[in-house]
Amino acid sequence: MTYAGVELGGTKCVALLARGPGEVLERESVATTSPGETLSKLAGLLAKWRFEALGIASFGPVDLDLASPDYGHITSTPKPGWAGADVLGVLRRAADVPVAFDTDVNGAAFAEMHWGAGRGFDDFAYVTVGTGVGVGLIANGLPMRGFAHCELGHIRVARLPGDDFAGSCPYHGDCVEGLAAGPSIAARVGAERVDSLGADDPMWESVAWALAQLCHAIVCAAAPRAIAIGGGVLDKQPHLLPRIETMLVDSLNGYMTLPSDRPYIRPPELGSNAGPLGAIALAMNARR
Amino acid sequence: MTYAGVELGGTKCVALLARGPGEVLERESVATTSPGETLSKLAGLLAKWRFEALGIASFGPVDLDLASPDYGHITSTPKPGWAGADVLGVLRRAADVPVAFDTDVNGAAFAEMHWGAGRGFDDFAYVTVGTGVGVGLIANGLPMRGFAHCELGHIRVARLPGDDFAGSCPYHGDCVEGLAAGPSIAARVGAERVDSLGADDPMWESVAWALAQLCHAIVCAAAPRAIAIGGGVLDKQPHLLPRIETMLVDSLNGYMTLPSDRPYIRPPELGSNAGPLGAIALAMNARR
Repeated sequence: MTYAGVELGGTKCVALLARGPGEVLERESVATTSPGETLSKLAGLLAKWRFEALGIASFGPVDLDLASPDYGHITSTPKPGWAGADVLGVLRRAADVPVAFDTDVNGAAFAEMHWGAGRGFDDFAYVTVGTGVGVGLIANGLPMRGFAHCELGHIRVARLPGDDFAGSCPYHGDCVEGLAAGPSIAARVGAERVDSLGADDPMWESVAWALAQLCHAIVCAAAPRAIAIGGGVLDKQPHLLPRIETMLVDSLNGYMTLPSDRPYIRPPELGSNAGPLGAIALAMNARR
Repeated sequence: MTYAGVELGGTKCVALLARGPGEVLERESVATTSPGETLSKLAGLLAKWRFEALGIASFGPVDLDLASPDYGHITSTPKPGWAGADVLGVLRRAADVPVAFDTDVNGAAFAEMHWGAGRGFDDFAYVTVGTGVGVGLIANGLPMRGFAHCELGHIRVARLPGDDFAGSCPYHGDCVEGLAAGPSIAARVGAERVDSLGADDPMWESVAWALAQLCHAIVCAAAPRAIAIGGGVLDKQPHLLPRIETMLVDSLNGYMTLPSDRPYIRPPELGSNAGPLGAIALAMNARR
């Protein structure tokens, strides 16, 4: 079986033709400019390929409500021209095959579950901490999705006692994203100081705490077999992973016992391939 | 198609033989005494009936991990004799049919989604606020379940500014259950005063806030089409429902927009039938 996958990113889009993660037949990049230009280039690529299912993993937020007339569109985005762009509508016209459409984060979660940090699981979570906090939550083998996609990065959690930083989320102030994403870290200590902070800087305690509270909520919501946390912040601060796991176990306080397969909080394994492979994983699911 | 359903409760168990919610053929109650006595009486009832699938909705916590040797057992419970009881193992021997096993809360969520407050939905949440806070979360048509069942009543949420009640959960202090369940309300104002408190008592603001934060997390996790909240506390204080919805909308602050089908936060519709009908709904799902 041959699959096509398109990952739409903020600066570039990647299209793959593949039989699986180890057998990539074609790989093309297209700069993300206007939706008209970018989507027609991608549709042109797809029209030249032969495949049996298509997966699309898009930057968001996107409309994932199957009951909505705007299903498959980008919703609100600060990216010029892209608010309301009909990503699914344009790309699905390139081939008459089953199409799966989801967020880039859900796609990456799917790819990590198939071929990376969540291999062998049917219930898995993938968290990315960068300019925002994205969560891909897979339960019963499917990404969680109701009238919208998972937005657990925007829950309001209990604060680390003594942490009185107001938070940087324009919507919620001190939600997890407002307490732990890159912009909040820069606001806490000054952007120029972030890269020189030692692992023992007390600020990291506040970041680890907020992410541990997010993981506490993920465990209580869906009890995934493991949680992978990646993204720019974690890539530079790998010491956070074991600290988050310790705080999570302390926070659950024996009410729930994590699976014995440790570490429970682990790094993702697919690196920058998670995005395009996520689109392939979505395509494989569309086929089934 | 004829289904059997067993709801195991803390004081009694109810077994139904039914073709659907409007066609109950048999209904039997058995007192919950020791597991040996109770389960063999229930198995005896089931052995006399003819049905094509069995659903079991049990008080918990239960082991729902399909990979666990203790799948279908009660785990820890203060109920004498029931810790470790093999509920599924005893009852499934009564008939050679497909069997579904889940918590009473997930069963009730399922029943409300099929025939009550969530009719027509595929994504739905049911919250019960009584001696504890239970959450049944259904995504993609299935109850959320990984290595354990949903325990969102035990997340730690942001506090209402000025609410400094320590919380009554023995595990987490001020988790949602520790802030909003019956025992926490009694601890806040004195058990003898609870029933005479007016709806304008400021204490209800703290309870509504904690439940609104729970709903905020439910929406961010799974975006259900609606959330039904019932249980002893809500049954006596129906004024809380619209207050929770208002607080939820304020808390989401436009980042996510609730579906237009309102109220989003609504009462359950099945009352005390939700439990046994939940077992029937589980049986219907086992069959599919």
